[in-house]
Amino acid sequence: MTLPAPIRWRDGRLWLLDQRRLPDEMFYQEQHDARAVAHAIRDLNVRGAPAIGVAAAYAMAMAWRHGDDLETAADELRRARPTAVNLSWAVDRMQNAANQGRDLVEEAEAIHNEDRTMCEAIGRHGASLIKPRSSLLTHCNAGALAVSHLGTATAPMYVAHDAGVPFHVYVDETRPVLQGSRLTSWELSRAGIDHTLICDNAAAHLMAGGDVDLVIVGADRVTANGDTVNKIGTRALAIIAQYHGVPFYVACPSPTFDPTTATGTDVAIEERPAGEVTDGIPTVAGVKVRNPAFDVTPAELVTAYVTERGVLEDIGDA
Amino acid sequence: MTLPAPIRWRDGRLWLLDQRRLPDEMFYQEQHDARAVAHAIRDLNVRGAPAIGVAAAYAMAMAWRHGDDLETAADELRRARPTAVNLSWAVDRMQNAANQGRDLVEEAEAIHNEDRTMCEAIGRHGASLIKPRSSLLTHCNAGALAVSHLGTATAPMYVAHDAGVPFHVYVDETRPVLQGSRLTSWELSRAGIDHTLICDNAAAHLMAGGDVDLVIVGADRVTANGDTVNKIGTRALAIIAQYHGVPFYVACPSPTFDPTTATGTDVAIEERPAGEVTDGIPTVAGVKVRNPAFDVTPAELVTAYVTERGVLEDIGDA
Repeated sequence: MTLPAPIRWRDGRLWLLDQRRLPDEMFYQEQHDARAVAHAIRDLNVRGAPAIGVAAAYAMAMAWRHGDDLETAADELRRARPTAVNLSWAVDRMQNAANQGRDLVEEAEAIHNEDRTMCEAIGRHGASLIKPRSSLLTHCNAGALAVSHLGTATAPMYVAHDAGVPFHVYVDETRPVLQGSRLTSWELSRAGIDHTLICDNAAAHLMAGGDVDLVIVGADRVTANGDTVNKIGTRALAIIAQYHGVPFYVACPSPTFDPTTATGTDVAIEERPAGEVTDGIPTVAGVKVRNPAFDVTPAELVTAYVTERGVLEDIGDA
Repeated sequence: MTLPAPIRWRDGRLWLLDQRRLPDEMFYQEQHDARAVAHAIRDLNVRGAPAIGVAAAYAMAMAWRHGDDLETAADELRRARPTAVNLSWAVDRMQNAANQGRDLVEEAEAIHNEDRTMCEAIGRHGASLIKPRSSLLTHCNAGALAVSHLGTATAPMYVAHDAGVPFHVYVDETRPVLQGSRLTSWELSRAGIDHTLICDNAAAHLMAGGDVDLVIVGADRVTANGDTVNKIGTRALAIIAQYHGVPFYVACPSPTFDPTTATGTDVAIEERPAGEVTDGIPTVAGVKVRNPAFDVTPAELVTAYVTERGVLEDIGDA
């Protein structure tokens, strides 16, 4: 199974896979400083909560090696995107390491390695949810491209597929940025996993027909009460899953849990440019647009959280 | 208020507004026989349940004037699209008129005029639902382009706007064919109605924030028990509206009611070509696609039906 790596680090040099060019080409752009990485995060060259955490960690390591001001680098990185907690978590951890006089390259590599290990554990635990001949549905891309190695929501799929379990995945296209059609479908194709692309609008119809056995998504932040902040459209998916009695799983590693934020309503939801919605589609010139990038899924709608520690029904166990 | 007419009929000649070219150009294509109209219906040059009924009625009138075989014309038209009941309703009515030796041009004009009158009545009744400074959400295009004159879901908006009531509309873009961004937004712009375009995925987030006071959609068929067949994505919208306590209204004229079909699960749901989903978006070549064009909203999720007879909570009153 060949999984694409969103981040490459060798001998103190950092390359990010430009995910905006997928699936047409795999192009790794070298990043020379923290400011460039902050831009890459903001422009979605690199995206996915864990991956932007890892990218930010390497950016801090570069700043440290180059003798750049770490405070400035940390500020630029944190401001790049407001919603995912992994970004600020990774920057905080790098700053703490710097304050303790530790080697920041080793610290970034440790974050990257831990991310890989957590994905593998998520895959092992989550694979138990995928019964033979079952049909999954996923939204956005919480895959290898979003994380490291196996991804989060996709990790159980990769592990089950590797073990020879036959199953099928419905891939939401995930408007407006189409991470499903562009990234998840591409990842699953490369891994040889049977899947079907659908418009986000079709999910409820498929559930009504009994075509979906479970939903697995990733998360950008899970607050203290279990509310899950994830790609726009996740909230609707969780509500319709509950209506149809379809279990709804959130797969994420521990750094996605944010015990310092009480509920999802306390999280800043990033509003992104109108062009993400209107570019390339027929509409009226200058039409007003709202483009929230994330939404909040109430904890009550989450069947369980698939983490590196197991499949946990209650966030209190995480 | 200038509303676009999807269908023009003068001196026995029929022109259909090619809605696929909107909003870039308003082009009326003359239709010379029933087969051409059937193609125009299948290819979505003309769409919207009432409008395809009216177009089919004029097609039957043309066939009658030209001395073409009416059975053949009726079969071709009925087969063009399977889901909306207005199409077969109009064709049946034209065949009955022919069997009674009546003038089919007059019958088609009567269907068209009745459609206009019903839209006006839907508008009058539905306008009472739009309180000053309220915020509506609509899906797909159940506007002037889909019907005649005022449209169905849009009729209350046009009447309220004309009466000087200030309100705002969120327009779902409505993937895959984008009738919201392409048609509804264009119609509302021409009428000067304040609106904001959103991705279908954003509706639940806006409802969670209290930004949506009511949902109004059209219908392609309402079965005997009140189940509503409408554009794909409507079912999810109704489920999330219920979850957030937002009233969900279905606006449609009587010919959309189908008392001969017991429930929504008895209606054939048209699956359309994969290209409607994949053309113009980045994805993997040859990816499998499911593209159901409609879905079923259970009657239990419909707050009321806005018809020419009033705002009816129960389909039994219709």
